[in-house]
Amino acid sequence: MGKAAGFTLGELAVALRATLDGDPSRVVTGVAPLDSAGPDQISFLIDRRYAAAARASRAGAFLAASDAPGLPAPTLRAAAPQQALIDLLTLFHPPAPVPPGVHPTAAVAGGARVDASASVGPFAVIEADAAVGARVRVHALAYVGAGAAVGEDSVLYPRVVLYPGVRLGRRVVVQAGAVIGAEGFGYAFDGAAHRKIPQVGSVRIEDDVEIGANTTIDRATLGETVVGRGTKIDNLVQIGHNVTVGEHSILVAQVGLSGSCRLGRGVVLAGQVGVADHVTVGDGVVSGAQAGIAGDVAAGEKVLGTPALPMAHARRVWVAKARLPELIRRMRAAERRLQRLEGQLGIAAPEPRGGDEDE
Amino acid sequence: MGKAAGFTLGELAVALRATLDGDPSRVVTGVAPLDSAGPDQISFLIDRRYAAAARASRAGAFLAASDAPGLPAPTLRAAAPQQALIDLLTLFHPPAPVPPGVHPTAAVAGGARVDASASVGPFAVIEADAAVGARVRVHALAYVGAGAAVGEDSVLYPRVVLYPGVRLGRRVVVQAGAVIGAEGFGYAFDGAAHRKIPQVGSVRIEDDVEIGANTTIDRATLGETVVGRGTKIDNLVQIGHNVTVGEHSILVAQVGLSGSCRLGRGVVLAGQVGVADHVTVGDGVVSGAQAGIAGDVAAGEKVLGTPALPMAHARRVWVAKARLPELIRRMRAAERRLQRLEGQLGIAAPEPRGGDEDE
Amino acid sequence: MGKAAGFTLGELAVALRATLDGDPSRVVTGVAPLDSAGPDQISFLIDRRYAAAARASRAGAFLAASDAPGLPAPTLRAAAPQQALIDLLTLFHPPAPVPPGVHPTAAVAGGARVDASASVGPFAVIEADAAVGARVRVHALAYVGAGAAVGEDSVLYPRVVLYPGVRLGRRVVVQAGAVIGAEGFGYAFDGAAHRKIPQVGSVRIEDDVEIGANTTIDRATLGETVVGRGTKIDNLVQIGHNVTVGEHSILVAQVGLSGSCRLGRGVVLAGQVGVADHVTVGDGVVSGAQAGIAGDVAAGEKVLGTPALPMAHARRVWVAKARLPELIRRMRAAERRLQRLEGQLGIAAPEPRGGDEDE
Repeated sequence: MGKAAGFTLGELAVALRATLDGDPSRVVTGVAPLDSAGPDQISFLIDRRYAAAARASRAGAFLAASDAPGLPAPTLRAAAPQQALIDLLTLFHPPAPVPPGVHPTAAVAGGARVDASASVGPFAVIEADAAVGARVRVHALAYVGAGAAVGEDSVLYPRVVLYPGVRLGRRVVVQAGAVIGAEGFGYAFDGAAHRKIPQVGSVRIEDDVEIGANTTIDRATLGETVVGRGTKIDNLVQIGHNVTVGEHSILVAQVGLSGSCRLGRGVVLAGQVGVADHVTVGDGVVSGAQAGIAGDVAAGEKVLGTPALPMAHARRVWVAKARLPELIRRMRAAERRLQRLEGQLGIAAPEPRGGDEDE
Repeated sequence: MGKAAGFTLGELAVALRATLDGDPSRVVTGVAPLDSAGPDQISFLIDRRYAAAARASRAGAFLAASDAPGLPAPTLRAAAPQQALIDLLTLFHPPAPVPPGVHPTAAVAGGARVDASASVGPFAVIEADAAVGARVRVHALAYVGAGAAVGEDSVLYPRVVLYPGVRLGRRVVVQAGAVIGAEGFGYAFDGAAHRKIPQVGSVRIEDDVEIGANTTIDRATLGETVVGRGTKIDNLVQIGHNVTVGEHSILVAQVGLSGSCRLGRGVVLAGQVGVADHVTVGDGVVSGAQAGIAGDVAAGEKVLGTPALPMAHARRVWVAKARLPELIRRMRAAERRLQRLEGQLGIAAPEPRGGDEDE
Repeated sequence: MGKAAGFTLGELAVALRATLDGDPSRVVTGVAPLDSAGPDQISFLIDRRYAAAARASRAGAFLAASDAPGLPAPTLRAAAPQQALIDLLTLFHPPAPVPPGVHPTAAVAGGARVDASASVGPFAVIEADAAVGARVRVHALAYVGAGAAVGEDSVLYPRVVLYPGVRLGRRVVVQAGAVIGAEGFGYAFDGAAHRKIPQVGSVRIEDDVEIGANTTIDRATLGETVVGRGTKIDNLVQIGHNVTVGEHSILVAQVGLSGSCRLGRGVVLAGQVGVADHVTVGDGVVSGAQAGIAGDVAAGEKVLGTPALPMAHARRVWVAKARLPELIRRMRAAERRLQRLEGQLGIAAPEPRGGDEDE
């Protein structure tokens, strides 16, 4: 993680299109968190929860929002401070250049096409008829199956596996250990045993998708499992066969998508959410963590809980649930009071009604 | 994913033991999903939810159930259409032949026995005293530990790890990244630190088991962790030490089985279910997704929820839970009405009773 | 898993600091579970649930607690029987000696420092400027990124990945397939797409930590993700960027820790628990399985459920939840009785009150 020698705050103001409160000739040599930054470093205040930590910070400069409160050192103020932070981090930590070429220990099969500008690490395996595009980086011990294709500027971290025929777009980043294109989980019980339904489809990952460590995305039974452009997938996520995930969606760690479910564009599923098979989740749906989405969710809805309910409703249920033991006691007390009143008026208590109708 | 040149519908009717509505000389060259199939392809209608999609399909032929409605192209009708689909897919996508032999880059230790008909891929590692049976396929970068055994016709996809001593039966399929035989999670706190309990047992996987990508199955503390014949395990499943899973069970993605739990035969656990340690789950138990099974479940039961309840009961709880905020309001209203009635009759409201007895 | 030729019970009594009920010259040649142990083997009774199995066991000797009931064979009695079991298992299954040296197929980059007493397996990759300490064992196909450091006596099982710059302390054990230091899940939406926030921090794993198979621990955005000394982490656990886990904590399988959450010392999270981002979990907190910890938890608390509640309260909620359908029926009956009483007294039923106040 190399660092440049440093930048003046004036240079940074220009690069980040920020206004500067303070001395433009001051030099900072790195970016650091509020609690560990020293006088030579710039830190940042983006999440207001950290305002007190910022005021107590020893940082030599800050990046903050245009309307952030005053801070104890020169401050770069940006209209979109999170975007400015990305630029700031990139200035200090430019991506390492890709050394092109195939490591002598890599195994590239005859018929595989590896662009001359691509980089292939030690013990990587590129099988027959696979295509590795320009400036792609295939790290050590990664596996690109027969006929698989990796679009330009993509990165496969160590030990990624692409099964045969899997297609990755451009600028796709796959973290270590992810497995793309394993056989989907499809069986039919024949009376004696579960017979495998051949999984002969494939997986298509569109441009600018990122996939987390040890995540698994299964190939389709027929056709394709698809992850749309710009979608970001965290670690240990499971995506079943024939799933479609729309563009620019976010799947947080340990989410599980069952076979044939369809997610729209801009969907956000928090950690450990599960989606049942064949369910459709509309554009822009947001789900809270650990939700269980067992039925279709209309575009734009926010949901929570198992089974998932509209989020505001689910939050009221969460609050009410904690009061359940109390509620049962109150019910019992009310029944006693009813009995006393009925006795007073000489009315017989009604027979309990049978049936399950939960009115 | 090679395809044969094509089959006539007459040939397919014979092969699938299906009856044919339509022209037996018509040729189809592939199988495709309803929405993408063209006039040269055969599609299928097995799940009735797709009947409308089938009627709108451009497929040149269909495979369907004996009693399926009329479809817009020649139709093969089978009594067991899902089994027929397996045969159909296998006809068009026959498994690739295994090229026998050890890749020159593989590392096979002295004392390992690799059958001459087995195939070992690039950078695969077979340690001392391991045994790889007839027609086994060990893909690239897989690891077979010392003394491990892989039964005939099994497949280890890239990067599978078998720890030392693990034993796999025949026709076992392990998808990429699965880890079988890692040390179980056993510690004893000695007052200052968690001391590791040596995990010196092993894992036995019986015939015809399939194991998903990045799934983990731990070795026993002593004795064996066992997965019974014909059981199918999806991706990212965790199986703790000393677990026994019976024959022909189904564990869907992200299921977690705690140490020493015992599952019977024909158990089905849907996605993200957790089972507590030392719990016994009887034969044929079915659990809905995300359930938390904290106690024993009798054979044949269907359960759902955390903690798991009988499924019909759990579904009523799910429905009722959504009405909890309403119920609290109704309780408050009832209490006001009681107070008014008691006032009317000159009865003092009772003191609230203490205690926790939730009658 | 080699075994010594055997020990007399007298030798074992000395080694385990146990008292012996029975013949000290009797020899046992192995340790086995109660149900499979034979007359030449010693078994153990630590969990009282297995007392009946112990009485029925054919074991030639037992290890048990000082106050355990009488058993059908000579018995070693220890004040801390679980610690004694660790010693017993270690006597019969001493750790295999580490054969020092770098396997000829391993790829050690120039500038990497590998201690002469370390062992590096086939196809392992040690990148530039990495440091591998004394007696470390890097198993086959593992990857140690540029500048990463592995402290003495640590073990990386096959296929572990350490991203560049990751630092492991001494005696750290990482099971197969774990990925340490992948890029954290940080994006900022710029109105058109999710832009990656560069993840330029690192991961620090302190001494005596153990990490399970296929677990993922992400690098910090800036600064460090930290796992404290002596903490044990099971399989398939996700630890997000900038998380801090205190010393001597226990994270059971499939736990997920969101970004920037902080766990104290001695925390125990059971399987499939999720912790939300930026949450603080105090020292000694214990959480039941599948809990969803969405807010801070004070030191020493025991919690359960989603959202997590104090454990005793949560258990009452669990019991009460099962009675919800019944409760709704009782409410309806109470309302009917109220209506009848009001009719009797000529009182109009009150208008339902609006609003959401769930009193």
